[in-house]
Amino acid sequence: MASNKPSVPKGTRDFSPAEMAKRNYIFDTIKTVFRKYGYQEIQTPSMENLETLTGKYGDEGDKLIFKILNNGDLINQSLLKSFDKLLNLLNERGFEVDLLNVENEDWGHGNKDQKVSWRDITNKLFDQIFEKLRFDSDDLFELYQSTSLKLGNTVSEKALRYDLTVPFARYVVSHQSEITFPFKRFQVQPVWRADRPQKGRYREFYQCDADVVGSDSLLNEAEFILIYDEALSNFGLKDFTIKINNRKILSGLAEIIGKPQLIVDMTVAIDKLDKIGLTGVSKELLERGFTEEDLQKLTPVILLEGNNEEKVNTLKTVLATSEIGLKGITEIEAVFAYLKNCTIKTAKLELDITLARGLNYYTGAIFEVKTNEVAMGSIGGGGRYDDLTGMFDSKQKLTGAGISFGADRIYDVLEELKLFPEDATQGTQVLICCFDREFENYGFTLVNQLRQQEIRAELYPPGAKIKKQLDYADKKSIAFTIMIGSEEMQSGLLSFKNMQTGEQQKLSADNILTKLKA
Amino acid sequence: MASNKPSVPKGTRDFSPAEMAKRNYIFDTIKTVFRKYGYQEIQTPSMENLETLTGKYGDEGDKLIFKILNNGDLINQSLLKSFDKLLNLLNERGFEVDLLNVENEDWGHGNKDQKVSWRDITNKLFDQIFEKLRFDSDDLFELYQSTSLKLGNTVSEKALRYDLTVPFARYVVSHQSEITFPFKRFQVQPVWRADRPQKGRYREFYQCDADVVGSDSLLNEAEFILIYDEALSNFGLKDFTIKINNRKILSGLAEIIGKPQLIVDMTVAIDKLDKIGLTGVSKELLERGFTEEDLQKLTPVILLEGNNEEKVNTLKTVLATSEIGLKGITEIEAVFAYLKNCTIKTAKLELDITLARGLNYYTGAIFEVKTNEVAMGSIGGGGRYDDLTGMFDSKQKLTGAGISFGADRIYDVLEELKLFPEDATQGTQVLICCFDREFENYGFTLVNQLRQQEIRAELYPPGAKIKKQLDYADKKSIAFTIMIGSEEMQSGLLSFKNMQTGEQQKLSADNILTKLKA
Repeated sequence: MASNKPSVPKGTRDFSPAEMAKRNYIFDTIKTVFRKYGYQEIQTPSMENLETLTGKYGDEGDKLIFKILNNGDLINQSLLKSFDKLLNLLNERGFEVDLLNVENEDWGHGNKDQKVSWRDITNKLFDQIFEKLRFDSDDLFELYQSTSLKLGNTVSEKALRYDLTVPFARYVVSHQSEITFPFKRFQVQPVWRADRPQKGRYREFYQCDADVVGSDSLLNEAEFILIYDEALSNFGLKDFTIKINNRKILSGLAEIIGKPQLIVDMTVAIDKLDKIGLTGVSKELLERGFTEEDLQKLTPVILLEGNNEEKVNTLKTVLATSEIGLKGITEIEAVFAYLKNCTIKTAKLELDITLARGLNYYTGAIFEVKTNEVAMGSIGGGGRYDDLTGMFDSKQKLTGAGISFGADRIYDVLEELKLFPEDATQGTQVLICCFDREFENYGFTLVNQLRQQEIRAELYPPGAKIKKQLDYADKKSIAFTIMIGSEEMQSGLLSFKNMQTGEQQKLSADNILTKLKA
Repeated sequence: MASNKPSVPKGTRDFSPAEMAKRNYIFDTIKTVFRKYGYQEIQTPSMENLETLTGKYGDEGDKLIFKILNNGDLINQSLLKSFDKLLNLLNERGFEVDLLNVENEDWGHGNKDQKVSWRDITNKLFDQIFEKLRFDSDDLFELYQSTSLKLGNTVSEKALRYDLTVPFARYVVSHQSEITFPFKRFQVQPVWRADRPQKGRYREFYQCDADVVGSDSLLNEAEFILIYDEALSNFGLKDFTIKINNRKILSGLAEIIGKPQLIVDMTVAIDKLDKIGLTGVSKELLERGFTEEDLQKLTPVILLEGNNEEKVNTLKTVLATSEIGLKGITEIEAVFAYLKNCTIKTAKLELDITLARGLNYYTGAIFEVKTNEVAMGSIGGGGRYDDLTGMFDSKQKLTGAGISFGADRIYDVLEELKLFPEDATQGTQVLICCFDREFENYGFTLVNQLRQQEIRAELYPPGAKIKKQLDYADKKSIAFTIMIGSEEMQSGLLSFKNMQTGEQQKLSADNILTKLKA
């Protein structure tokens, strides 16, 4: 049977009970922190209208959107459109085609028992064409293309969401009148991308976002840092860095050089400092249109060192003549000032002006989170944006800021560091095993007593060998077993076994209950 | 802007924070009970391979499966197939078509800068055809159809899951070697159906299933009844009925009449007793191929009255000569016997032989749950089946049983009965409002102190009018507000307001904390 085992589509995954327990632990931990900071959960449909999604992710992104085929009669309606097009072509050439007077028929369905079948229509039509007309190949290409290649567009009106941001923007516009701003929402749902699957990249994966819209207060930025700190500390991470930058600082840098139009080239090059060093970055900057003179201005910034305060002071000097640059510094200083009054548990906070993620989107703060314990890409990121709903021609400009947790990567980090707590991922706490079917009623009564005390308990259906039952407990990582045989029934003392240590005791049901509740 | 507001696809829904809180309450309550009985969560991908789903739901069901369009180059590959077909047609007729020697080109992409463009190929091909050959219309129809009508099948290889049962069966086959049986799993995920949307029927909705496979013990049936009882009692429902039947009893009835092949007709008719009464049922039975003599045997069963024990006794007499019928009764008696030793909190248990849901699928117990407090369809159902994985040609026959909760209907019931508990759906517990921006730092310190005590707290970004801040608390159903002005700063006593009663007190921060934690 191994040969024709059904499989899941490429790039998608099943999650086993053990994996789900760990995933739930991650999501629950993050959600609890979101809620503590006033963020509320929403959900949007898995599918959005195609027009809601297209054009929002660039050409490359658009290609990765999973489209949903319209069902049933819509395919025929698209076929009908092709016929219309063909008829127009024919008419333009002064040739009158009689479409069999089927206009009043039910075109929508194409049932076999329809008076005139599709086959009849097609045959007749082609006959007419071939008998009487010689098309040039362009027209035929059009016909051909409109019924095949382009069919993809006419038969799909819905698509699976590609991220949580665009559906959120759509949600805000759809519900603008019901929402009280500032609107602090979080959303944990799967997204789908027709990316080429590879290690760590899936076609279905969860995103885990929190955003506030309708507030320009930098309090929000400070709180995002606290949220990262608290959630990741709760996972037991001991060493991670929250990098912060501000788009306005990057704009300021491009401005003082007099090349604001090269801001993207500048940041792309600077971003590579870690990999290619100053020499590499300088070379790339020259290739991308900067001069030696520009480099002199940029180098101190690229090599920016010291603690955050020292960095801020250096930047103030460099950006002294740039209004927008100074504004960026003021914003970062304000965020740092808020945080001075707070207890940051674990996070290192690092001003990093080479941080440029989402540059086209963010207008203020930019965040990125990295663990220093495991080699791994960023496990979180976000920033501030000026206009969430502009993509939907909303008149009201809504500023906002948001962050995201990379749940799949966090999973890998916790796995590698063995940080998943046992009790958080524990399913059934105790399994009751009967040596014989005759103890079934006793076992069933006991299991229900345990459950009444909110203990997660199971009775293995009596009749199986005890080894099989213990094996079940073992495989399911059940912490304790209770064994019931004739000896136990007589004495009233049940065999209570710690499955991890192997330790076994004879205890009354009451004592077992007390132990389990401890 | 109301005019071109973006909307969600027909039959799908956004869930607001208030709705999500209620939905989470429902799912969390059910999941907690599932876990208490040893069921573990799994998740399967939203999309399955088309062949995994098709043929499992009948012709009508197949039509309602949402198919996902293959992306990018696969459409061209399907076009390529059409060309191949055309070439074959041509070759069969002894005509050699030179496909421009493009076989070694990258057919997969069709970029504009490809040496030979699709347009070139198409034009050339059609030219050749039109110059040299006269097809009969059948061939052309084939070509046409293979590139348009049938395109729907070639361009989709994946589909959204239609229910949780088939993906679960697929999961069991895929992971058979890793699973420890009996496998008790639950799954709470959305499913998609291209049904005509109408009140209470959606194209995307959550199913909430628990199944055990690999165990034929009737303990499982008894536990399902306990799970229903516990979960629905936890919701605060005061009056609901769990109906139970057994497919073998229905088989037995058809057997004693000597018309086992009419079992479906029999149950469909009997099922209508509530609506059309005995006269109606009898009439329908006669129409469906039963005789007056058959009716005499069936009538006492249709009118079966009394408590469950009395019903069982009547059935024993009626089914005395049917082995399978008696087996069904024995099974039901066993389930009742298990339950005698348990505390059933609220549920009424009713043997109802007119219950026939999922008749084609279930082979043993059949369940259905109805609330008696609100007019509403069933809020749960399930049963036992013989062979979960047979649909995938699995050699190992896996018997199992499962139940399902109707989350959307439970939502409506709890809403109508006003049973959603306030604390379960409460988001932020306290909002801190500053009369002036100068109190911001104090407010920020306070909000973080509250959060350190695990209180869900927010600081409204200072600067807004106090009325606007209180309005925000009101709209977000925040229970308490703390107001900070110069008087409060001087005295150290903060204004603490209960938003529901309007009661306001001056309290120290410590006292407020104590009150909030109480």
